[in-house]
Amino acid sequence: MTTAHLYPVILAGGVGSRLWPRSRKNMPKQFLDLTGHGRSMLQEAYDRMLPLTPPDHIFVITHAEYAAIVRQQLPDLPAANVVGEPAARGSAAAIGLAALHLARRDADAIMAVLTADHLIRQPQALRQALTAASALAQQGELITLGIHPAYAETGYGYIEMGEELGRYHDLAARRVRRFREKPDQATATQFLAAGNYAWNSGMFIWRVDAILAEFARQMPALHAALTALAPALAGPDEAAAFARHWLPLAGNITIDYGVMEGAQAVAVFPVDLGWDDIGSWAALRDVLPQDAAGNVAQGRHLAIDSANTLVYSPDRLVATIGLHDMIVVDAGDVLLIMPAARAQEVKQLIDLLKQQGWEGYLD
Amino acid sequence: MTTAHLYPVILAGGVGSRLWPRSRKNMPKQFLDLTGHGRSMLQEAYDRMLPLTPPDHIFVITHAEYAAIVRQQLPDLPAANVVGEPAARGSAAAIGLAALHLARRDADAIMAVLTADHLIRQPQALRQALTAASALAQQGELITLGIHPAYAETGYGYIEMGEELGRYHDLAARRVRRFREKPDQATATQFLAAGNYAWNSGMFIWRVDAILAEFARQMPALHAALTALAPALAGPDEAAAFARHWLPLAGNITIDYGVMEGAQAVAVFPVDLGWDDIGSWAALRDVLPQDAAGNVAQGRHLAIDSANTLVYSPDRLVATIGLHDMIVVDAGDVLLIMPAARAQEVKQLIDLLKQQGWEGYLD
Repeated sequence: MTTAHLYPVILAGGVGSRLWPRSRKNMPKQFLDLTGHGRSMLQEAYDRMLPLTPPDHIFVITHAEYAAIVRQQLPDLPAANVVGEPAARGSAAAIGLAALHLARRDADAIMAVLTADHLIRQPQALRQALTAASALAQQGELITLGIHPAYAETGYGYIEMGEELGRYHDLAARRVRRFREKPDQATATQFLAAGNYAWNSGMFIWRVDAILAEFARQMPALHAALTALAPALAGPDEAAAFARHWLPLAGNITIDYGVMEGAQAVAVFPVDLGWDDIGSWAALRDVLPQDAAGNVAQGRHLAIDSANTLVYSPDRLVATIGLHDMIVVDAGDVLLIMPAARAQEVKQLIDLLKQQGWEGYLD
Repeated sequence: MTTAHLYPVILAGGVGSRLWPRSRKNMPKQFLDLTGHGRSMLQEAYDRMLPLTPPDHIFVITHAEYAAIVRQQLPDLPAANVVGEPAARGSAAAIGLAALHLARRDADAIMAVLTADHLIRQPQALRQALTAASALAQQGELITLGIHPAYAETGYGYIEMGEELGRYHDLAARRVRRFREKPDQATATQFLAAGNYAWNSGMFIWRVDAILAEFARQMPALHAALTALAPALAGPDEAAAFARHWLPLAGNITIDYGVMEGAQAVAVFPVDLGWDDIGSWAALRDVLPQDAAGNVAQGRHLAIDSANTLVYSPDRLVATIGLHDMIVVDAGDVLLIMPAARAQEVKQLIDLLKQQGWEGYLD
């Protein structure tokens, strides 16, 4: 059984600002049931792992402020498996902190870094990929999951894939030749045509000792902090140790930038998971079921001549005339209306809110 | 003093369906403060008369269901001056019922029929017109107020004006040559160019005995019902008399169709009152103060690149990107979004609501 030492680590510390005003500082995206499935995205991420591993192998890393929400949403998860960061210091640091917890638990631990706020329509395919990656990870490889690109998306990073390394549980592993940043449209089209590019999913599998060794090599300040934190973990001096070693860490270094791009060798399993990062309201529209006019409704939508429009209003009737390719989001105290094509400008709206002194609408 | 016998009669029985979802069956347009002035439209209609006449001369005719709202909104109006129709039977019948009340009160009563749900920006001009019309009405004339047309509107009826009848309180009265139904665009443009057309405002002035005589001549069934009702009015048998004589009346005959168009002679005072019937959300947008981008907000509107858009949302923040010439109305349980150019289609939305079995949103 190659997954006996597998520990899914779900990163759940995001703020999901591109899905404002439903996603709020006090209740971000990963804790919402945006798709109407009846479970939050975090709960779905947790549920997906249960056929593969017992609950006490699953860890959730989040901001300390969100730990109570995680425990409330995942009552079967042991409380000790909810790891709260006292302050966000980027995904590399979050993964480092999780690694400390796993290393205490199991010297042979294999860590699967998973996201709490992405949609995965084919959970069985994810479990197969994690099983395959576990087998390869035991050899010390750093592994990433690459998503077969469905179209020439410019909003994702890409992985350029090289030679095949072998097959594991029916899945081919390949050498990562290079990580590529978000491309322009022409480059994305080339990537798609070339056939040896995959989307960077943000999901990783590795032995805990392997990732700690990479931190030591590439991020020595982080590694030193982790080493200093380790003895105090989950003990009476934890808060003091965090104040001394964690808070001074440089903010916001991602695992991609801090480790993966500089790693000497990385393997990738290209997979098809029905994956979507739901990175905007337009992306959510595109993954939800449409009616004959292309409209998507969460809640009641009464329409005359409206099409391809997302109405996200669980509590209120929305009546529309002649809305085409629009996004309408009702979130209690805030209502958002915009063309789907401008869904990324929610960030500018948030800046404008702050300028107006209306930050309360972000909470 | 020509206004000693003047009795303003405010018609307040409308349902205001074109301003759904703010205007609802249980609280229609005339009881709302749509313009943000701090008073409902009915209260403004009442306030406008106070410099001209004491409160006990003012009558409000409304559906019996709304009588409590009228009394609550106009606490200084004598309760007996709120006349509730047990069922709507059109404006001719409503005016007939008001005439009965005035005839009991003052044999020389002059009735000024006013609307509760129109905007009048120049109330002093209205009072002057009513004073002038009172003087002429004492001679037995049926009088209507015509509005100087500001542009070639196709949504109003027009009055074709003939020779001048004389001047009263500095205002010229003219003979009405013909009432004209809502014209098409070319005809409206001709009317505007001709210079002797006025918009039909729905405001009338006449002696009570003159209008009752016209009912007797042109609407004998209504006149007979009124005659039968008269002895029971405001007495213990009123409800029975209404059941017997009022409920069987044919529904919805307007004063224009039932009396004015067939009257032997009608006079008109063409006036400029800063009048608007606020007959749609687009019309409301056009009368409210705009910001530099042409946006009109009741409530908080946070906009990126939105223009000429009405955001009517007293309770919720509305954030918009790229909305042009749109209407956004928040009404608690319903949200309405449409282009201003399609504001008349609210009627079709209401039909659609009924088809869906969602009539509750009309209440």
